[in-house]
Amino acid sequence: MGVHVRVVTPITSRGFRAASDFEGLLGAEDTVSHVEIDRGPASIECEYDEMLSVPDTVAKIVDAERDGADAVVIDCMGDPGLKAGRECVNIPVLGPCETSMNLACMLGNNYSVITVLKRLRGQFENQAKLFGAWEKFASVRAVDIPVLDLEQDPTGTRKTLTEQALVAVEEDGADVIIFGCTGMLGCAEAVREGLLARGYDIPVIDPVPATVRIAASLAASKLSHSKIAYELPPNKPVVGYDMPPLQGYLAAAE
Amino acid sequence: MGVHVRVVTPITSRGFRAASDFEGLLGAEDTVSHVEIDRGPASIECEYDEMLSVPDTVAKIVDAERDGADAVVIDCMGDPGLKAGRECVNIPVLGPCETSMNLACMLGNNYSVITVLKRLRGQFENQAKLFGAWEKFASVRAVDIPVLDLEQDPTGTRKTLTEQALVAVEEDGADVIIFGCTGMLGCAEAVREGLLARGYDIPVIDPVPATVRIAASLAASKLSHSKIAYELPPNKPVVGYDMPPLQGYLAAAE
Amino acid sequence: MGVHVRVVTPITSRGFRAASDFEGLLGAEDTVSHVEIDRGPASIECEYDEMLSVPDTVAKIVDAERDGADAVVIDCMGDPGLKAGRECVNIPVLGPCETSMNLACMLGNNYSVITVLKRLRGQFENQAKLFGAWEKFASVRAVDIPVLDLEQDPTGTRKTLTEQALVAVEEDGADVIIFGCTGMLGCAEAVREGLLARGYDIPVIDPVPATVRIAASLAASKLSHSKIAYELPPNKPVVGYDMPPLQGYLAAAE
Amino acid sequence: MGVHVRVVTPITSRGFRAASDFEGLLGAEDTVSHVEIDRGPASIECEYDEMLSVPDTVAKIVDAERDGADAVVIDCMGDPGLKAGRECVNIPVLGPCETSMNLACMLGNNYSVITVLKRLRGQFENQAKLFGAWEKFASVRAVDIPVLDLEQDPTGTRKTLTEQALVAVEEDGADVIIFGCTGMLGCAEAVREGLLARGYDIPVIDPVPATVRIAASLAASKLSHSKIAYELPPNKPVVGYDMPPLQGYLAAAE
Amino acid sequence: MGVHVRVVTPITSRGFRAASDFEGLLGAEDTVSHVEIDRGPASIECEYDEMLSVPDTVAKIVDAERDGADAVVIDCMGDPGLKAGRECVNIPVLGPCETSMNLACMLGNNYSVITVLKRLRGQFENQAKLFGAWEKFASVRAVDIPVLDLEQDPTGTRKTLTEQALVAVEEDGADVIIFGCTGMLGCAEAVREGLLARGYDIPVIDPVPATVRIAASLAASKLSHSKIAYELPPNKPVVGYDMPPLQGYLAAAE
Amino acid sequence: MGVHVRVVTPITSRGFRAASDFEGLLGAEDTVSHVEIDRGPASIECEYDEMLSVPDTVAKIVDAERDGADAVVIDCMGDPGLKAGRECVNIPVLGPCETSMNLACMLGNNYSVITVLKRLRGQFENQAKLFGAWEKFASVRAVDIPVLDLEQDPTGTRKTLTEQALVAVEEDGADVIIFGCTGMLGCAEAVREGLLARGYDIPVIDPVPATVRIAASLAASKLSHSKIAYELPPNKPVVGYDMPPLQGYLAAAE
Repeated sequence: MGVHVRVVTPITSRGFRAASDFEGLLGAEDTVSHVEIDRGPASIECEYDEMLSVPDTVAKIVDAERDGADAVVIDCMGDPGLKAGRECVNIPVLGPCETSMNLACMLGNNYSVITVLKRLRGQFENQAKLFGAWEKFASVRAVDIPVLDLEQDPTGTRKTLTEQALVAVEEDGADVIIFGCTGMLGCAEAVREGLLARGYDIPVIDPVPATVRIAASLAASKLSHSKIAYELPPNKPVVGYDMPPLQGYLAAAE
Repeated sequence: MGVHVRVVTPITSRGFRAASDFEGLLGAEDTVSHVEIDRGPASIECEYDEMLSVPDTVAKIVDAERDGADAVVIDCMGDPGLKAGRECVNIPVLGPCETSMNLACMLGNNYSVITVLKRLRGQFENQAKLFGAWEKFASVRAVDIPVLDLEQDPTGTRKTLTEQALVAVEEDGADVIIFGCTGMLGCAEAVREGLLARGYDIPVIDPVPATVRIAASLAASKLSHSKIAYELPPNKPVVGYDMPPLQGYLAAAE
Repeated sequence: MGVHVRVVTPITSRGFRAASDFEGLLGAEDTVSHVEIDRGPASIECEYDEMLSVPDTVAKIVDAERDGADAVVIDCMGDPGLKAGRECVNIPVLGPCETSMNLACMLGNNYSVITVLKRLRGQFENQAKLFGAWEKFASVRAVDIPVLDLEQDPTGTRKTLTEQALVAVEEDGADVIIFGCTGMLGCAEAVREGLLARGYDIPVIDPVPATVRIAASLAASKLSHSKIAYELPPNKPVVGYDMPPLQGYLAAAE
Repeated sequence: MGVHVRVVTPITSRGFRAASDFEGLLGAEDTVSHVEIDRGPASIECEYDEMLSVPDTVAKIVDAERDGADAVVIDCMGDPGLKAGRECVNIPVLGPCETSMNLACMLGNNYSVITVLKRLRGQFENQAKLFGAWEKFASVRAVDIPVLDLEQDPTGTRKTLTEQALVAVEEDGADVIIFGCTGMLGCAEAVREGLLARGYDIPVIDPVPATVRIAASLAASKLSHSKIAYELPPNKPVVGYDMPPLQGYLAAAE
Repeated sequence: MGVHVRVVTPITSRGFRAASDFEGLLGAEDTVSHVEIDRGPASIECEYDEMLSVPDTVAKIVDAERDGADAVVIDCMGDPGLKAGRECVNIPVLGPCETSMNLACMLGNNYSVITVLKRLRGQFENQAKLFGAWEKFASVRAVDIPVLDLEQDPTGTRKTLTEQALVAVEEDGADVIIFGCTGMLGCAEAVREGLLARGYDIPVIDPVPATVRIAASLAASKLSHSKIAYELPPNKPVVGYDMPPLQGYLAAAE
Repeated sequence: MGVHVRVVTPITSRGFRAASDFEGLLGAEDTVSHVEIDRGPASIECEYDEMLSVPDTVAKIVDAERDGADAVVIDCMGDPGLKAGRECVNIPVLGPCETSMNLACMLGNNYSVITVLKRLRGQFENQAKLFGAWEKFASVRAVDIPVLDLEQDPTGTRKTLTEQALVAVEEDGADVIIFGCTGMLGCAEAVREGLLARGYDIPVIDPVPATVRIAASLAASKLSHSKIAYELPPNKPVVGYDMPPLQGYLAAAE
């Protein structure tokens, strides 16, 4: 009687995620299922990309609940659709940015985010303010590699990530590192070792695996988001979007 | 040689705005033009509604710049599309929530937002945190009237707004009032008088007129948002949205 | 190949915890072991009690690592020994207060703590400030029942907890509830139902089960606290305490 | 039926301002009038100078209302007399520092102030805290030129301003620049171009023109400061100052 | 070889202070001297009054240093002239508001200010923000008695003060009380007893005696304010004020 | 009829303090007495050391009250036992860290702590957050000398302290310096002179002398900590500690 976590990757590129990315994250009785969105951008690197990813991400979150998932994880550090998605369902919906920032608050005194592009600095600052994690925010550093190119030179990517993490530690005072793009999946061990080699024994949070596990924990604890904070949307006409019916409306109609 | 401000109403209901709503806001040489979105929700009362309004709102912001507007005002207190819209254009894009909250910081010590529904409290708290206006935030109070019903009983609406504004002043310590829904347009004078009758001589910010005038001021001052904060989105494939080409891409292609 | 979480109950009363309290929290392959401290107060209800509980709590944390535990959970909402304990070991050490407050930041906009005694208000405020969770802190409410009396009238305790949680929601604006004493273990479902009956569908965090699961998640993710933030203590003479040798000293001596 | 904005320059040096400084700021029907104070310091470069400028600045603010002005702008980035002046009148009184800082919050994520002397750093920090603009405050940088010498080498001044703005952007993370002295009037375009030449397309706020326009906007919107926050002073004996009678006293006497 | 503390009462009313007010505050070898200002308002109850009190208060601070005082205390909770005064001299200058707020941070978790008039709420909030004491600020409560009437009915004043202090404790969560007007001198014991009679054993700070003693302590510790934060004003022409020459100018001229 | 201040040095090393360290701090009629703890660490350089010092420090605080002391000062910048000690007694208990940080808030705009070891950075950040002194916190810098070695090369220690203070001023923007270890007693004058020689005229707070004097001032003002914030601990069984009986229990038993 395990837990079922659905991961929604909010981009339309295919091949960004493999089934193997989620293997072994949870226990033998648990399930991690995975979908990508059908409408939206090829990757998410700014507010514009993000807003185009949101409507179908929310639709996939609604689908997940209908499919019997016990929790949903959004596979992007912009946490697109987090708030709207939570309004639509009763199961917990987690964003890797909100989750990682709050974990970071538990693991050290000051955390930095190492992301793909410098332009995302403001977005991470804003997210830290929204997520109640601003008090321990140290900095954002970027490797200057577009999301879809992270995989092209895995060794180079790990090396640059380590370099920027070192800058965060030595210049910005970070004692916890968060990856600022879910495309960096799998690089945490290398970066942690790189930091250790320089004498810094600190956690490096790989957001998606950590968030999938926290999602499973919340589901097991029967904890979901507050429905005062995330009330079911009022039913009303919508033009131009074919959104799935919300379970809440169906329940109310019975 | 006046200024042209474009107002984008991010809902698909028709009749919510009349041309007369913007008459006389600016000088004789200036123009206020107005469009509504074609795809999205009938009204905006939660995060779900808001995310469905954003893509076409951003498209209309792009159109506005192409049409020669000098500034854009988004006609909703959720400021939908504010950040993504700013990435796409060079003219200033203003949200009435961000603008009103920063004006409120200039007019008194503690401001409250009087909005339609109680459920919006969290959204306004979050916006205050994002907009650098949290330090003077006092409270959110709600009249419990859906957006599209505000006009049904204008006298009752004004009365209830005044009552909630009084609660904000007397219980929450507010000394400035902001309307928390652009559908309350035109009620500020009545509420201000109601407060005056109780001995409270304080500003009541009607967000859209105030924001249109600030937008014109910024345009006249040749001030627009920071392109470090709001860089042009990278060009990439998008599935399922027919967004207008960004001027920046066209310029770069030349 | 499961995870082993050690729970340390930092009081000298016996019978406060039963083995059954931890049954079923983790998967079939995982272990939750439990110890109490041998030197310290009968219960923890103030800073004085807490400081007397810390030295042996830290000793038990050191023991836990030596015994092969993968993570430690301190069973008291004062999180006694959290920081000193982390300095001594490499496995993650979690306090239920820090963990619950950061979870609360992920589940809603404003959380309240319902604790045993009013006098603890300042301690929870201080903890929220330390744990990077102050921005969403709403209030502390108390049931006015000493820790060791919570079990005397379980029905009465649940009823009073529900009443105070309602006050937190209706007067303080809370949308998430955290129990402020680990002696309230097992009451969350009743309180959640009591709130639901009043129309409030919000999470009620039972700190110990939630923290045990998060501890297991961190261990599975190979995440521990930062050793920049929590460096191994320097070796030096100590008078009057028979503390266990730290693994780090032994390792260094090799 | 235009708007009349009165600018009060709170120093006793003559020749610091020319009528041409305000030409073209507002529409054809509007008026910008200008006065200097008669008692006070030659320039304002510290708290001592500022306090000596305040009494006559407030007198001039009272005069402005009696003269029929619709709004007042204080022409100094210390905003001398802002709070006392507001107590005395009903028309909006704006300080360029408060106004620019709140505008900066609307234009980017982090703003810096480029001022004349390093010693003013603390004053700007304090003002940001008072004006509800601390959350986006990045830094203060100084050109090390006394106020009255800014005009001596206009080209040198623009060059140094640009250099310090670059430091603010590159070292302090600023994405909006505010001039920290109203004596820098007219330099914004040059600094903005200098930054553009280095690839930084960001707003440079020239405080006085921006504030005059915002003042006109507020007057047109019938918005003034809160009289709860800025209540009319109680009438009482004053020794050694020949302050103009407050309109409010005259009204009350009728 | 005692310490000499000069108290400057920044109002022109005579009889507000008696020599006996300062008797016994310091040791037998120490001196407390006292002056009132000659130009300014009869009492200070708003920003307008305060700005009129500042120039002569600063002159008296300069005089104090020239007279050989070791420290200065400004006798008003608006701390008028605090910053400008510090620029002019090298001896420590203390304001009772700044001092009391920082003492309150050391004595409890949340402090409230009980002042004369409700209108002062904003001023105290602003001072708490400036003085680094905002994090523990609970509220302002007022007795609604003008400054110069506090002495008319001493028993009534003490009774009302106690009532408002009780409101601060019971409704606002205060655990430390600060008097918000130096005219309340001598009432602390009565209020403290009134609170004790209701079961609240908390400190009631009588600002002037406390500040005089802290000033003496600082002088004894050879601690004064930072001259980076409070640099000597640049020498320049001033019209209409007959300020005493600053020691710093004289020293520089030698 | 002087004041008696008891200093408790919370370490078991002998020779760290000489009687002469406290000579001349207070007036001729006053007394400074001194004790060290009997159980605990040789020095305090981390959370682990600190928690081992607390129980006996609290015992010594209880003894101090019973011995007739009017105030207690804890002689360590970790302020060990501050909160628990205050619960046990009615006389004021002061920590040099809390006291110095609040004094620093009164002396300048931004303060830095110069301490022994880099690892203490997080502890000082946390203390600033707890003590209501975070808003003016600039940085922590370390001299990298263990506590008990500070005296080995007094000249070298002073030189390194001065160097780090300069870094704090020039790189971190500090305008007030606090020594971050009470073992630096007596170095303030040298560091202040070193800074003066570089043109920085700023206060250097030597925590113990300053705190002893503030403690005497509070005692003279009959101000002690809030017993709402620091209520007497409930009486209960304790295993393994031989704590002195609390006066409050004895009083209650009468």
